Amino acid sequence: LKKKTYATFTESMLKSLAGIIGQENISTRESDLDNYAIDEAGAAVPHRPDAVVRPISTEMVSKVLGFASKKNIPVTPRGGGTGVSGGAIPVRGGILLSLEKMDRIIKIDPDNFTAVVEPGVIVEHLNEELARLNLYYPVHISARTATIGGNASTNAGGMNAVKYGVTRQQILGIEAVLADGAVINSGGEYVKCSTGYNLTQLILGSEGTLAVITKVTVKLLPLPQATEILFVPFSSLEGAIETVPLLLRMKNIPMGLEFFERDTIEVAEKFARYEVPGHGQEAFLMIIMEGDSSEDIIQYFGQIEQICRENGAVDFFAPGDALVKRKFIEFRENIGESMKQFGKPDSVDTVVPRSKIAEYVRKIKEVAVEFGVKVYLTGHAGDGNIHFSPVVPGKKANDIKEIKAKFLERIYRECVALGGNISGEHGLGSEKKKYISIGVNVETLGLMSAIKDAFDPGHILNPGKIFDD
Amino acid sequence: LKKKTYATFTESMLKSLAGIIGQENISTRESDLDNYAIDEAGAAVPHRPDAVVRPISTEMVSKVLGFASKKNIPVTPRGGGTGVSGGAIPVRGGILLSLEKMDRIIKIDPDNFTAVVEPGVIVEHLNEELARLNLYYPVHISARTATIGGNASTNAGGMNAVKYGVTRQQILGIEAVLADGAVINSGGEYVKCSTGYNLTQLILGSEGTLAVITKVTVKLLPLPQATEILFVPFSSLEGAIETVPLLLRMKNIPMGLEFFERDTIEVAEKFARYEVPGHGQEAFLMIIMEGDSSEDIIQYFGQIEQICRENGAVDFFAPGDALVKRKFIEFRENIGESMKQFGKPDSVDTVVPRSKIAEYVRKIKEVAVEFGVKVYLTGHAGDGNIHFSPVVPGKKANDIKEIKAKFLERIYRECVALGGNISGEHGLGSEKKKYISIGVNVETLGLMSAIKDAFDPGHILNPGKIFDD
Repeated sequence: LKKKTYATFTESMLKSLAGIIGQENISTRESDLDNYAIDEAGAAVPHRPDAVVRPISTEMVSKVLGFASKKNIPVTPRGGGTGVSGGAIPVRGGILLSLEKMDRIIKIDPDNFTAVVEPGVIVEHLNEELARLNLYYPVHISARTATIGGNASTNAGGMNAVKYGVTRQQILGIEAVLADGAVINSGGEYVKCSTGYNLTQLILGSEGTLAVITKVTVKLLPLPQATEILFVPFSSLEGAIETVPLLLRMKNIPMGLEFFERDTIEVAEKFARYEVPGHGQEAFLMIIMEGDSSEDIIQYFGQIEQICRENGAVDFFAPGDALVKRKFIEFRENIGESMKQFGKPDSVDTVVPRSKIAEYVRKIKEVAVEFGVKVYLTGHAGDGNIHFSPVVPGKKANDIKEIKAKFLERIYRECVALGGNISGEHGLGSEKKKYISIGVNVETLGLMSAIKDAFDPGHILNPGKIFDD
Repeated sequence: LKKKTYATFTESMLKSLAGIIGQENISTRESDLDNYAIDEAGAAVPHRPDAVVRPISTEMVSKVLGFASKKNIPVTPRGGGTGVSGGAIPVRGGILLSLEKMDRIIKIDPDNFTAVVEPGVIVEHLNEELARLNLYYPVHISARTATIGGNASTNAGGMNAVKYGVTRQQILGIEAVLADGAVINSGGEYVKCSTGYNLTQLILGSEGTLAVITKVTVKLLPLPQATEILFVPFSSLEGAIETVPLLLRMKNIPMGLEFFERDTIEVAEKFARYEVPGHGQEAFLMIIMEGDSSEDIIQYFGQIEQICRENGAVDFFAPGDALVKRKFIEFRENIGESMKQFGKPDSVDTVVPRSKIAEYVRKIKEVAVEFGVKVYLTGHAGDGNIHFSPVVPGKKANDIKEIKAKFLERIYRECVALGGNISGEHGLGSEKKKYISIGVNVETLGLMSAIKDAFDPGHILNPGKIFDD
């Protein structure tokens, strides 16, 4: 994609915007410009927008984009700002379009198992509302303030994707505003569709570069009445990983299946001031199961324990107690946070075929030694989605940057060579875009550029993301 | 989309093609031209291709498309030819590209729960191979000779979509050839991806108008060890339909949940020379359940029967016997066939929110009376996907055509007004393209046209489909 130049943002543009959507929905306060200059991408360089715009309706979004198109102003859409790839950083300045005020749950239809929500709805809030109706939206990512719009834009995965799939699988339809202000609808409150091209699925995961999502129709499930969490230490990494496909052959497959290696656990333990059961073992699986009742889940424990022990599990913890279960989940959610003690983390988000996890993990460790890099591995083992933050000990800042970049490039190549790809659930944003050609071949990249041009010829939507422009 | 004109197909083109992919992979025999002039779209007008081309490799597909692009020859890709919307009819002549010879199962990975197959693989054959490894590909459509490539191109749904979703949800990645012959790869043997735009999901369901799919990576499931089928007659249509959401709240939701009304059943009974249990009742549900063992499924029968009886079920048949179960499935599969006695059927394929099925069915019947049309309703009730073939009794052929067209247009409008869409699983092909603007608003249609232009600027791929050109 060719890098474009944009208009200089002027006082007169600000006045026009205020005329279009009201002064109360626009801010140029220093503190706002700073707050919206960065997301959770630790290593990213902050970049202030010229103005923070918080529309309260689709109509307003449409007017803002129509204006921005006409005036050639970049627009960076933003959800909860919890992304870790810099997707919400306004790297070309201009308008930061925060969808935070569009946070209404428009409709929940218990008979149809669907809800229609605005993009600013926080996923956790949606689930609180749904629980009252015995319903459930299954995507569970670590960031508690993530919004459905942000999840949709990155195709967020998270812990429960083993059983239910990622965000893409939960979204039936969207309303979105195109760069020129046109409002489109795609899909809806129905579960099957073969009527023209599936624009919903194209826009999902496009990180705000094709359209601004202003409404989302999600699929719902009956609320599981019970959740149990198992924590299983293994004497070897291989053993833990080889257990994964066996657990996926069970009748009631785990909702989540998380993997940790010892070093990661130890860092997280210090952060949480909590020692996990089996402390000191080489690897761990956390197995999240759901069902109609605890008994309903517990009936599988014997089978699970047997599978684990046959593959090197040295113990088997099934706490049952709600507080302990909550602690496990929080422990997992805080791993990213615990890594911050090593400096701003680069969250690696590679995905490989599940059957290649062991080979890939071995390769990561080998390459890490070669580059003098320390890695703290964790991952959604049931999905083949391996995360880690590389740490380079005993070097100067500039050297660290260079070593990390070379190391990451090598890791991405190894991952793709194993049939995987460079981002499983975080997106490329501004931080990983330079690696896109490792994951996407040149013909495919050409097609993606052509699609971008078709949707947004002026490239005003989230410029400087995904494409290495 | 603007209608294009194409080159006249010449002897010299035929010779060039033979030079490119070998005479043995090209046919211009009368019988072939006739066989490939039509698919299962009953009311469609056959149209002969100029040549039938049957490539045996991606490389050949690439060469054929490169040549066709250069020479401006239309290319119509074809799978099993079982589509019912005319998607595989070469309405502009030129090359009929049958993928039937590309029928290899390239790889089955039991640890990763994936398979990589060529597009010409017949879905039923794939499942025979998978069963040996205790694995399973869940999409089950009525046409027994449908291919995975054809299913992918129409985003086929079928009977088991209630629990497992449609084809779109089973496909993790594709290899495809673009109009100019470039080969792209999108997705792969991994279950999570946020690396650039999702071209897999865009190409799926695009009916061969964007690219020719040459390889498909599918997600697999452990083979269910038992399947049970229930057949439940209801004294009222409403009762049957209102039972649907209640069944979807169960822990082990049905894999399939089919609905029939009395008139449909009676036609199908005559065709099958078989009388269903509960013969004569107003409506019926067929409930397909799967599990680890028959006992495992049967434990839910009490709950299901209670739900059904509370909503007007007058009886409850759970045959258990394998032959009877097979008979039920075949009975369902043959409904389309049984409708042919009324003339070439127009298979209507509307989808509505599940909670709107009753209202929609009432509306169809009301409108049918208004137009003097007889409808035989059936449908994938669990998906809100209602099928019927309108029959116009006692009119002349020309009048029938006109009445049907007006009736269908009205039905499509009613369906969309209820929040549904005009094709749930069959695609628009050549037969429903004239209704596309009912289901897709003008801005969205503009975007679809722009995508088509970006992929295939010369419009050589499956021209005359989807878009009302």
